[in-house]
Amino acid sequence: MQVYNVSAYIVPATDAHMSEYIAEQDARLAWMTGFTGSAGTGVVTLDKATLWTDSRYWIQAERQMDCSWELQKTVWIHSIGEWILQEVPAGKNIGLDPFLFSIDNWESYCQALQNSGRNLIPIETNLVDLVWDAQKPPPPTHSIYALSDEFTGNTWQNKVSDIRTQMEKHSKSPTAVLLSGLEETAWLFNLRGDDIPYNPVFYSYALLTKSNISLFLNQSRLTQDALQSLTAGCPGPLCVHLEDYNQVKAHLENYVQGDIRIWIGTEYTTYGLFRVIPEEKRLQESYSPVMTTKAVKNTKEQGLLKAAHVRDAVAVIQYLLWLEKNVPLGSVNEFSGARYVNQLRQKMDHWRGPSFETISASGLNAALAHYSPSNVSSRKLSVDEMYLTDSGGQYLDGTTDITRTVHWGAPTPFQKEAYTRVLMGNIELSRLVFPSGTSGRMIEAFARQTLWKVGLNYGHGTGHGIGNFLSVHEWPVGFQSNNVPLTTGMFTSIEPGYYQDGEFGIRIEDVALVVETQTEHKVGDKPFLTFEVVSLVPYDRNLIDVRLLSAEQIQYLNSYYETIRHRVGPELQRRQLQEEYEWMRSLRGAVPDPLSSSTAPYSEVQTH
Amino acid sequence: MQVYNVSAYIVPATDAHMSEYIAEQDARLAWMTGFTGSAGTGVVTLDKATLWTDSRYWIQAERQMDCSWELQKTVWIHSIGEWILQEVPAGKNIGLDPFLFSIDNWESYCQALQNSGRNLIPIETNLVDLVWDAQKPPPPTHSIYALSDEFTGNTWQNKVSDIRTQMEKHSKSPTAVLLSGLEETAWLFNLRGDDIPYNPVFYSYALLTKSNISLFLNQSRLTQDALQSLTAGCPGPLCVHLEDYNQVKAHLENYVQGDIRIWIGTEYTTYGLFRVIPEEKRLQESYSPVMTTKAVKNTKEQGLLKAAHVRDAVAVIQYLLWLEKNVPLGSVNEFSGARYVNQLRQKMDHWRGPSFETISASGLNAALAHYSPSNVSSRKLSVDEMYLTDSGGQYLDGTTDITRTVHWGAPTPFQKEAYTRVLMGNIELSRLVFPSGTSGRMIEAFARQTLWKVGLNYGHGTGHGIGNFLSVHEWPVGFQSNNVPLTTGMFTSIEPGYYQDGEFGIRIEDVALVVETQTEHKVGDKPFLTFEVVSLVPYDRNLIDVRLLSAEQIQYLNSYYETIRHRVGPELQRRQLQEEYEWMRSLRGAVPDPLSSSTAPYSEVQTH
Repeated sequence: MQVYNVSAYIVPATDAHMSEYIAEQDARLAWMTGFTGSAGTGVVTLDKATLWTDSRYWIQAERQMDCSWELQKTVWIHSIGEWILQEVPAGKNIGLDPFLFSIDNWESYCQALQNSGRNLIPIETNLVDLVWDAQKPPPPTHSIYALSDEFTGNTWQNKVSDIRTQMEKHSKSPTAVLLSGLEETAWLFNLRGDDIPYNPVFYSYALLTKSNISLFLNQSRLTQDALQSLTAGCPGPLCVHLEDYNQVKAHLENYVQGDIRIWIGTEYTTYGLFRVIPEEKRLQESYSPVMTTKAVKNTKEQGLLKAAHVRDAVAVIQYLLWLEKNVPLGSVNEFSGARYVNQLRQKMDHWRGPSFETISASGLNAALAHYSPSNVSSRKLSVDEMYLTDSGGQYLDGTTDITRTVHWGAPTPFQKEAYTRVLMGNIELSRLVFPSGTSGRMIEAFARQTLWKVGLNYGHGTGHGIGNFLSVHEWPVGFQSNNVPLTTGMFTSIEPGYYQDGEFGIRIEDVALVVETQTEHKVGDKPFLTFEVVSLVPYDRNLIDVRLLSAEQIQYLNSYYETIRHRVGPELQRRQLQEEYEWMRSLRGAVPDPLSSSTAPYSEVQTH
Repeated sequence: MQVYNVSAYIVPATDAHMSEYIAEQDARLAWMTGFTGSAGTGVVTLDKATLWTDSRYWIQAERQMDCSWELQKTVWIHSIGEWILQEVPAGKNIGLDPFLFSIDNWESYCQALQNSGRNLIPIETNLVDLVWDAQKPPPPTHSIYALSDEFTGNTWQNKVSDIRTQMEKHSKSPTAVLLSGLEETAWLFNLRGDDIPYNPVFYSYALLTKSNISLFLNQSRLTQDALQSLTAGCPGPLCVHLEDYNQVKAHLENYVQGDIRIWIGTEYTTYGLFRVIPEEKRLQESYSPVMTTKAVKNTKEQGLLKAAHVRDAVAVIQYLLWLEKNVPLGSVNEFSGARYVNQLRQKMDHWRGPSFETISASGLNAALAHYSPSNVSSRKLSVDEMYLTDSGGQYLDGTTDITRTVHWGAPTPFQKEAYTRVLMGNIELSRLVFPSGTSGRMIEAFARQTLWKVGLNYGHGTGHGIGNFLSVHEWPVGFQSNNVPLTTGMFTSIEPGYYQDGEFGIRIEDVALVVETQTEHKVGDKPFLTFEVVSLVPYDRNLIDVRLLSAEQIQYLNSYYETIRHRVGPELQRRQLQEEYEWMRSLRGAVPDPLSSSTAPYSEVQTH
């Protein structure tokens, strides 16, 4: 820091692609602080070291960091800025690695420090790496492979042509698109890798112009097939020029000398690359055309993602039946449960791994929305507690993500009411009809109103996009203010919940496809849309208070169960899972079972 | 333009306070073009003159403008910019009056022209005024008066102290608040005027510091009482220093020399004042603390606004009964109806005028959401058509705004369905329970879902704030993305609609107060909220298809009618409007009338 003349240095928990999960080589904050949580920011001054992280991680951070680190229990850049203003005198500099900060984050820090006499200095040499040095984990070496045609929605050449058409049609006449999100290059070129946990992507950048394609990556890691696929069209406009990953900045510096305009996605491009492009040569939008095109799955991609969800449903149904048999024996804990559901998925065709760290939480642990069990501290599952499991798989045809909450004993009336209201919220949003182009933000509250009505709510988002063998949290689809409007072909999760501190947690999460629907009347040219739920796993009848449901909700539920029987049934039979097949067919959504009252426990319902 | 070396000059349709309605002296665009619509932008080059306006005004603009003007049928600043780029060569300047453009609009024009080699030049001398010269209407001369204590929520001294407390608590330590919205000074100092049509405000600015208050206006227009009220505390921190309206810029230029920071509302402060303040001395928020404080009515203000709505309901109920009797005689047209409802309001206590130009639209005219009749073209009301009236009053205690749609004959099944669905939307939003701090944008769709379900929708916003004897459209409350989160004490209109081009239009608009509600359970510290509808006028039972209503909607409707009887009944009796009283009491919301079927026409329902 003294060499670079900075009095404070800011270290974030992300990589140069704003990835949600990061590789070991990018875990600078964890190496420096000892704290391994996924979110946080460290600031080092010449005599202090402080970590900011959110409430999920306070206990973990206190435990993992030694006394040279101080913990700040906020996350706002504004409050980090205030701390810096206290600790760093005016006239001094604050440094950061511009390749680890998005344009937005850079601007937030600038704003926090503006007119204070302190300067924010981008330093392209990462100071943590200088110290980490030889101990730093090496870059990944796994191969980067081409996805076979059966698992892609289109050839990469057609995708490139589509993006080029969008460039030509754009009123601001961009000459190039810069891709810096790892999902962007993976999707565009139909390539996958294993550089990042849970997400099958690889370190890369791309610069796509009207006549040229430059792909920046470690070329030696490409399989023969992948190399063949990328270079088959050489020379020509559909020839991919392979360049070293580290050359992206130099290449960009050269390219911006010309009469050009580069289209960038400001939500995830780093300030390091952004500042290379002169202002008048930028075309700034929140997302690149690759990101927005990828968000709308074509018919083949929709089919692939649905097929992955059918197989995934088989694994989850197997798991739920297994739990029902084994939890009463006292032989299952959160960790062994999580391991088992992943073992079941592993047996499915095209499985490539979990799509995120499995959440398996019993009783009060489920009240922590992001709890994951570990081998050393894992609660035993019991018929006296609610159990929440949120898990997903990576399959070559699609990524899955599903949450079910169950109770094998006698839930309290409040637990049943809360569960039923969460389910009603899920249903109300899932069956909503809305005009094309409606933003998720405008309809999110339909998943909350059934809880709001009685003074309940949940503190997390209502859903996120999901990929075809890509990220489980795929931007820019979802229900937040910075998500794009919903159109046919988008997939999003729908996941309302309710969390009672210290007692229990409920979440019901399905993945749904945005589809066109026929309405009785119709105003305007734009189609009306609704959701088709593609997660096909029964809910827990033991937790549903049917008396709270409207006739339409009951109808919806029964029809959903019919869809499960129709679509997952054949797959269960194909795999000769006869017991699971019978069990699944015995489950009912809302129709009170003729042989049992509406308060009959789950275990009775499955006996026939 | 040649003297000022500009090749194009942009003329907007607003004033230096971004007022929605403008005084004659500010109607520069209308004087220059002949076009008198409320929205538009003119651009004059050395050889062309072009007007941009939206679809509401295309026919009117074509008719009113002569052939020296060209009409452009868009409104986006972006498209105006594109036209300028075509017409004005690079290297040339484009001029505008910086006091007629908000900061946002200035920035949009800058962005549209950026890197094009054309420069946007602020010219403080208004070029239209130079030509208008002696023909320009003189500034208003009506007096500016103090509102008596019975009509204010607090003394102006207490309001000033409250704003100063907010300044002290603000982390960015503002030393002053600049008020440039006309509602801001009117509300803060409990003064009113008649400078602007429909809105009882007066030309003014204010700069409020911790120890000083400068109010910029034409001092000679203050009544003796108003002058006395403002200067009673002199000398001292609650003494208002009166300065000339035109001195605001010079005063600001002097003030910014010091070690200061000025809090401004960027949504409505003009670029002309904004640019006087050095960047490091600005505290920019969307709205000033006066705007956000004004938005939350205290208990007394709530009571005043509710009382105004009770009297307003009397006038509208009188009007509806009068229509029911006179429309079948063929003696009412849109214009005479509009005149009559305003005459009825005029008889109410504390009436000061209409709060906006009355919309009175029959049949296909109602499909134009902003149609107003004129003396020369006015459609006759008929029992064969639907009729929509959207009107409001300014009363010393509050501003009102209400829309009712009625049919005195036999509506088509589709008209009944559409009306019922609009009403259901109004009800669903009105009775929604939501957590404090929820933004209007997040819940707006509850007013639309009942229409969406069958493929219908409406193309305007769902509601807006409203003042205590101030603007009928009062920012920043409402359901759009730039509105502030809803909290107890805010008033908003709720006004879904449906418009069938060339056939009919429906809108049902009520004003509602955001109130705390008790919920069965409760999570978190924040209260849960709902709406209390304060517009108290029956809907048209003849247009309601009760079969579409849920049990909860029927219960809500019946309870709303009970509230009308309970709150408006005594006022009708006090005014000896016995026929109206009986008529109002005979009306039912949803309970099918025991003596008539659910399809009984309106005229039958009122016979007892």
